[in-house]
Amino acid sequence: MTLRVGVIGTGMIGQDHIRRLTQVVSGAQVVAVTDANEMVAKEVASRLPDATVHPSGQHLVADERVDAVVVCSWGPTHEEYVLAAVAAGKPVFCEKPLATTPEACRNIIDAEVAHGSRLVQVGFMRRYDESYRALKDVIDSGQVGAPLIYYSGHRNPSVPEHYTKDMAIVDTAVHDFDVVRWLLGEELAAIRVLAAKPNSLGGDLQDPLLMIIESASGVLVNVETSVNIRYGYDIRGEVIGETGTAALADRGLVVVRSANRVGVEVPEDWRQRFITAYDVEFQEWINAVSRGLGAVGPSAWDGYAAQVVCDAGVNALYSGDRVEIELGTKPALYG
Amino acid sequence: MTLRVGVIGTGMIGQDHIRRLTQVVSGAQVVAVTDANEMVAKEVASRLPDATVHPSGQHLVADERVDAVVVCSWGPTHEEYVLAAVAAGKPVFCEKPLATTPEACRNIIDAEVAHGSRLVQVGFMRRYDESYRALKDVIDSGQVGAPLIYYSGHRNPSVPEHYTKDMAIVDTAVHDFDVVRWLLGEELAAIRVLAAKPNSLGGDLQDPLLMIIESASGVLVNVETSVNIRYGYDIRGEVIGETGTAALADRGLVVVRSANRVGVEVPEDWRQRFITAYDVEFQEWINAVSRGLGAVGPSAWDGYAAQVVCDAGVNALYSGDRVEIELGTKPALYG
Amino acid sequence: MTLRVGVIGTGMIGQDHIRRLTQVVSGAQVVAVTDANEMVAKEVASRLPDATVHPSGQHLVADERVDAVVVCSWGPTHEEYVLAAVAAGKPVFCEKPLATTPEACRNIIDAEVAHGSRLVQVGFMRRYDESYRALKDVIDSGQVGAPLIYYSGHRNPSVPEHYTKDMAIVDTAVHDFDVVRWLLGEELAAIRVLAAKPNSLGGDLQDPLLMIIESASGVLVNVETSVNIRYGYDIRGEVIGETGTAALADRGLVVVRSANRVGVEVPEDWRQRFITAYDVEFQEWINAVSRGLGAVGPSAWDGYAAQVVCDAGVNALYSGDRVEIELGTKPALYG
Amino acid sequence: MTLRVGVIGTGMIGQDHIRRLTQVVSGAQVVAVTDANEMVAKEVASRLPDATVHPSGQHLVADERVDAVVVCSWGPTHEEYVLAAVAAGKPVFCEKPLATTPEACRNIIDAEVAHGSRLVQVGFMRRYDESYRALKDVIDSGQVGAPLIYYSGHRNPSVPEHYTKDMAIVDTAVHDFDVVRWLLGEELAAIRVLAAKPNSLGGDLQDPLLMIIESASGVLVNVETSVNIRYGYDIRGEVIGETGTAALADRGLVVVRSANRVGVEVPEDWRQRFITAYDVEFQEWINAVSRGLGAVGPSAWDGYAAQVVCDAGVNALYSGDRVEIELGTKPALYG
Ligand SMILES: [Mg+2]
Ligand SMILES: [Mg+2]
Ligand SMILES: [Mg+2]
Ligand SMILES: [Mg+2]
Repeated sequence: MTLRVGVIGTGMIGQDHIRRLTQVVSGAQVVAVTDANEMVAKEVASRLPDATVHPSGQHLVADERVDAVVVCSWGPTHEEYVLAAVAAGKPVFCEKPLATTPEACRNIIDAEVAHGSRLVQVGFMRRYDESYRALKDVIDSGQVGAPLIYYSGHRNPSVPEHYTKDMAIVDTAVHDFDVVRWLLGEELAAIRVLAAKPNSLGGDLQDPLLMIIESASGVLVNVETSVNIRYGYDIRGEVIGETGTAALADRGLVVVRSANRVGVEVPEDWRQRFITAYDVEFQEWINAVSRGLGAVGPSAWDGYAAQVVCDAGVNALYSGDRVEIELGTKPALYG
Repeated sequence: MTLRVGVIGTGMIGQDHIRRLTQVVSGAQVVAVTDANEMVAKEVASRLPDATVHPSGQHLVADERVDAVVVCSWGPTHEEYVLAAVAAGKPVFCEKPLATTPEACRNIIDAEVAHGSRLVQVGFMRRYDESYRALKDVIDSGQVGAPLIYYSGHRNPSVPEHYTKDMAIVDTAVHDFDVVRWLLGEELAAIRVLAAKPNSLGGDLQDPLLMIIESASGVLVNVETSVNIRYGYDIRGEVIGETGTAALADRGLVVVRSANRVGVEVPEDWRQRFITAYDVEFQEWINAVSRGLGAVGPSAWDGYAAQVVCDAGVNALYSGDRVEIELGTKPALYG
Repeated sequence: MTLRVGVIGTGMIGQDHIRRLTQVVSGAQVVAVTDANEMVAKEVASRLPDATVHPSGQHLVADERVDAVVVCSWGPTHEEYVLAAVAAGKPVFCEKPLATTPEACRNIIDAEVAHGSRLVQVGFMRRYDESYRALKDVIDSGQVGAPLIYYSGHRNPSVPEHYTKDMAIVDTAVHDFDVVRWLLGEELAAIRVLAAKPNSLGGDLQDPLLMIIESASGVLVNVETSVNIRYGYDIRGEVIGETGTAALADRGLVVVRSANRVGVEVPEDWRQRFITAYDVEFQEWINAVSRGLGAVGPSAWDGYAAQVVCDAGVNALYSGDRVEIELGTKPALYG
Repeated sequence: MTLRVGVIGTGMIGQDHIRRLTQVVSGAQVVAVTDANEMVAKEVASRLPDATVHPSGQHLVADERVDAVVVCSWGPTHEEYVLAAVAAGKPVFCEKPLATTPEACRNIIDAEVAHGSRLVQVGFMRRYDESYRALKDVIDSGQVGAPLIYYSGHRNPSVPEHYTKDMAIVDTAVHDFDVVRWLLGEELAAIRVLAAKPNSLGGDLQDPLLMIIESASGVLVNVETSVNIRYGYDIRGEVIGETGTAALADRGLVVVRSANRVGVEVPEDWRQRFITAYDVEFQEWINAVSRGLGAVGPSAWDGYAAQVVCDAGVNALYSGDRVEIELGTKPALYG
């Protein structure tokens, strides 16, 4: 009844997921870990009741005690570990990105299609956030009519020194790309990227960016990344439909009246905003895998599509052009 | 076509109404002024194109050029000036209070009833505030069902040294008493006054107070006065009906996201909150009087009723008892 | 590592807590059940992997496999089961009420004090609700100054036929009583109960009620119960402090603009509003008990105090008087 | 002291302004009218105390009794009437558009520059709306840092049959163009127009449109026109600054809780939304003109610039290209 999980990558995110698997959600146990830094892996394992430390991801996947695998190692290693899990016929939860190139993602898709059923889930946690889920419910209910425009705002107080302009697309907007595909239930077809007057607090960075995306059916999607905006970590989303609009509400819990202002709090960081979404994401993954379903959440196709949009976005950013998003044929496995 | 107005009392409020009559509203002219301090009256008149300075309110009322009278002198003098205007058959707008005792108010009612039609209007400006009007529309529409409870919050950042505990009732809550009578369309029947743990910022003052009032039909009205609450001048009102509730919305015009907060501004003082209500109050008074209607706004009866509630409230504050509000018979003139 | 729990009472609430213990929270297992209706207990146990059905609560408490007890049987039986658990030195989570009379609660307190450490926790789940916790954080931070007034609104769309006027106090307002004691960090000292004009949708019921409570330090607490208000299940709370106010925010997740309105959803029932609070309540209880702490949440004293306030409230409702709340001495065990 | 105004064009808008001049604002009188339809002009004049009916706008401008002129005739006639007023040295308030082509606007600028001081004001009433003014105050205060992005949403429930796609730019978005120039305090430099998936409720119309505009300093401006969106007349505006954001608040006055929703009203039409802005616009115009200032509000240059942006926008709509906005040199008269 308890799902025995092996975790590849025991850095910050890996440790957080281990905490989640052992102390927050129901029905899981962490029985194996591995990390490029074996010292860290051993230290993490020492705090678990009965976890084996493996020398590599491949060894971990092969461990008979491991029912399912969580991959949160360095991005460029995702492909090989996910492929190993698929080869072993074991369910695998892979943090985003699924892989760092569209081609690598395609390799995973091919392997999964060859396997014949879904085993791979990608960590797009926004789909598990109660606010986004409520927004999707409103859209699907028809309350505001068919979506015609979508505004997505992705705001960070600040970013580290090493943050480059590509990262605004590949690390930041990628979440918007996925959640928009999911909310609209369709693929994205083309992208333009415009740089606004740069925020002087961001040094030389081109920030904010405005990405204008066309969906397959013609919905215009506007993704704004403002990653040095100081005031808070703020995730905005609003659909403009034929008869009304629906937007993510502010989530502050207490209305304070003080010093001639009335209002609520804005989160400081992504953790405060999305921690519950991660919990739900893992609980639902465990539930599905425990019931023998390989994966029901974001698929390898979703991971691939996000990567293709990122590639097109980076291309658009450098060229200044409208760049088409070419996904090729979607295997029947992905519905 | 232009209404010629005489203003009794040219202190701060009088000067503000003169500005309103001459520079803001349409259809009025100030042709006469008087004040206990004749120097002030002369100075004010010197800035008007054609205004006579009178030695007394009685002289001003008798001036043939004066079509209608505005009384904003010291409260204890209101009775005699309003009575003079009624005796002269001239419409009179009297700032609150109509008079300082229920008996004095009754004298005015008797005079007006003897005159046979309405001439007196009392300056309860909240009835002209767009927010309160919208609230009354919602109540009257039946959207929230019959009112059962009403919460009225009256908050000031601070009050001057000379502010006494009676004033929380007589100067502050009197506005709530009137607006509740108007919103509910019925009289108030009994009042209790409870003092909360005192706000340390208010010195020795009993502040805040909670007044629990029963309307004639049994609606419970909760009037809170918090007159040292610092954060702003905030007027709250919420009706609890049989099927829903309706409350005055915050009126901030701009939603600002800054420093981990999102919200709007709260007014600093009554002027910022109600200045437009005064403008509307005067425009409607001028329009009515110009059309030959003596008065259509808050009546002498309303001024009297507010005074009786104040008397009962002060009695309740000192006694700790539930005090009944006895209005006696309402003359047919007041509907 | 896994806490083995026995559940006394497998009715609707008991089954919901069993689901929670087995499918939602981390670290617990249900190993024993019992119910006045043995058929139900057996049916519930049949869906659990390894649960014993006991003929009585006393047998269940005595079961060596049972580390901790959850009591969700009929209210009048709570006392004996909680006493049995305390006698056995086992941690016990008891749904409210702790017991149906102050005297019965005192018996539990005496037993726990004799035991020498806390074992009993009472199911006041509001203390685990993220909104109330955020409100308490704001109060404790001093952002709005010392609390002087607190408004508590408890609104239900409707109540069943058998709902009596006492229940508005004993079943409904009891949650407000507890949460106010916790938010203010002090005891309640006196209560008045006023009935508003009755809601015609509630038949003969005296509804809504307004309860005016004085805390030990003089804070005025206003508890409104409106149990036939149709529009939704709405829990309101607002503290009026010396320098500002803080209120529970509306929790709707999506702002919809449609048909000339903009707004968010209001919950339909308590389940929608508080389900997460129950989850957190149980996770924290399991965590504490697993760490060897008998109980860290709402105590037997809290259960007793709530019961005394309820008694005073019912007395006040029938008498129309201000009734003092007499708690007697608080044992040192309760801090 | 009373400004004597002549009104050219007594259709719906003209009559509304006459009502405003005679019954709402202070300090004006309508002494002359004219209209292409003389019957209408006579009918309107008959309801005024002392107004001359003129056979043409030129005659009206020449009337010695006329101190200042209001032009609200058919758009293509604006140029000649405004030029006539300038030639006569009389202040003139012209409803938008100032003229229907950039060249015609330039003619007016040349005439005014030749005159040597400002006489012309254009009816961009949004600059007088309290919400936009408050937004400008926040921007100018630096609370949210330098503006980098601006979102402007212009939503109508529906448009008449004869509404063409050009009108979304020339009649609808023109207000957004002006108000953005004013809020940012700079000119617009280039425009793209993208058509979203069309709203099926708008028949063959390309609706909604998304216009992406670059300001001279690089601010990205996003103007959305959704003119068949049914839910209400909704004007949205939000500036994204370096450290925060500021947006026009919803203006509903009453928060209603009913039927599982909580929220406020959205206006039904532009009249409900902007009627007060028109009142303020006229009061300020009268005040300025009465003080001998020819005009202090939106200038001929503003009218010209708006027209140039409209031209570029229509060009961009048909071509699909990014079109530059070429204003040429701004005369010193316009600061
Ligand atoms: Mg993730
Ligand atoms: Mg007044
Ligand atoms: Mg409970
Ligand atoms: Mg205009």
